[in-house]
Amino acid sequence: MEIRIMKNILDRNQNKAEEVRSLLKARKVMMINIISSPGAGKTTLLERTCEAMAGEVRMGVIEGDVTTDRDAQRLKKYNIPIVAINTEGGCHLDSNSISKAVEHFDLDALDLLFVENVGNLICPSQFDLGETFKLAVVSTTEGDDKPAKYPMLFSEARAVILNKTDLIPFTNFSMDSFTTDMATINPGIILIKTSAIRGEGLGEWFGWLRLQLEEFSAG
Amino acid sequence: MEIRIMKNILDRNQNKAEEVRSLLKARKVMMINIISSPGAGKTTLLERTCEAMAGEVRMGVIEGDVTTDRDAQRLKKYNIPIVAINTEGGCHLDSNSISKAVEHFDLDALDLLFVENVGNLICPSQFDLGETFKLAVVSTTEGDDKPAKYPMLFSEARAVILNKTDLIPFTNFSMDSFTTDMATINPGIILIKTSAIRGEGLGEWFGWLRLQLEEFSAG
Repeated sequence: MEIRIMKNILDRNQNKAEEVRSLLKARKVMMINIISSPGAGKTTLLERTCEAMAGEVRMGVIEGDVTTDRDAQRLKKYNIPIVAINTEGGCHLDSNSISKAVEHFDLDALDLLFVENVGNLICPSQFDLGETFKLAVVSTTEGDDKPAKYPMLFSEARAVILNKTDLIPFTNFSMDSFTTDMATINPGIILIKTSAIRGEGLGEWFGWLRLQLEEFSAG
Repeated sequence: MEIRIMKNILDRNQNKAEEVRSLLKARKVMMINIISSPGAGKTTLLERTCEAMAGEVRMGVIEGDVTTDRDAQRLKKYNIPIVAINTEGGCHLDSNSISKAVEHFDLDALDLLFVENVGNLICPSQFDLGETFKLAVVSTTEGDDKPAKYPMLFSEARAVILNKTDLIPFTNFSMDSFTTDMATINPGIILIKTSAIRGEGLGEWFGWLRLQLEEFSAG
């Protein structure tokens, strides 16, 4: 399937988030805005999710990247619709770009639209794209102090994927500090621990994702 | 020593970078603007550098953080002058804040001023703070594709510390991809490989830093 490449449209005077949200709700497409630091494992998580669920759930991806379309290329093999947004140095995606990108999908042939935001723990958490919910991905190698130091994302997200759990034994990561700080910021947040590269914990992620899709389509 | 805490002053109409650079040059203080993703190891690198060199080089630190002063607190034990700038959600430091922060140091009692920028691979690389040079810190666990995906920092930095080399055996990091992409973007960039947490490669960093200080004070 062809990857469509767009530029990011930053327009401070226009907020298309509610328009996007209404459109997707009417067309029964759930949209997840995935936010993480560079290299936390967003694309690997999407690869595993495509492999496991693309036969059962009709999914598409909007890929945000600062310069390249490398992440979009990594997902091409799953034969799902992909729109790549090149921000040309911009540090986050914007609801205007998402609104334009959504026009390129056949929404009647979709159940789930992932947005892989630009690798950045700060700016993307401050912008509503019209998503159903935000998903934070954070890796253990970034340290256990990320919820305390970057609280905005953790207060905004419905769930956190804590990735690279296979590397915990080789770091000074404290699960106790991590979960305590996170619970202070957002007591209701869902925590799913994975090693996307080794396949660990992914069953829990797939199960939770199915539940969100059921709840979304119910209403 | 008391940690002074300031707020970030973002003013798009004022660029104080050249003013800061001239002042520091006149007062013979070298300033290094350290930029990385969240959790790449900037603070640990500063801890090791204070331990090894604070007796030989008179250093100070400006700590940029989104919300907490946790990084500043980690450096307090070295008894060096520290100014913490809280960006209150802002994604980078700004030359106006640096200009104000510099006023709080006794410049005649300093040789080296580190700026630990906000954890973000994108925005901080787009702002000149008046530094002598930018230093990139990137960790192996973020993946070997960071130079290709975030070229601005790698084209701006004089040197790159590739940290967490002890974790390479447990990841799919390719040193060849990393160095090839980086050489395409900035052929003259210096690469120093470290594991700050284990102390590996730090001798090379200290030696290179001493050389920069000698060249700065000679020039």
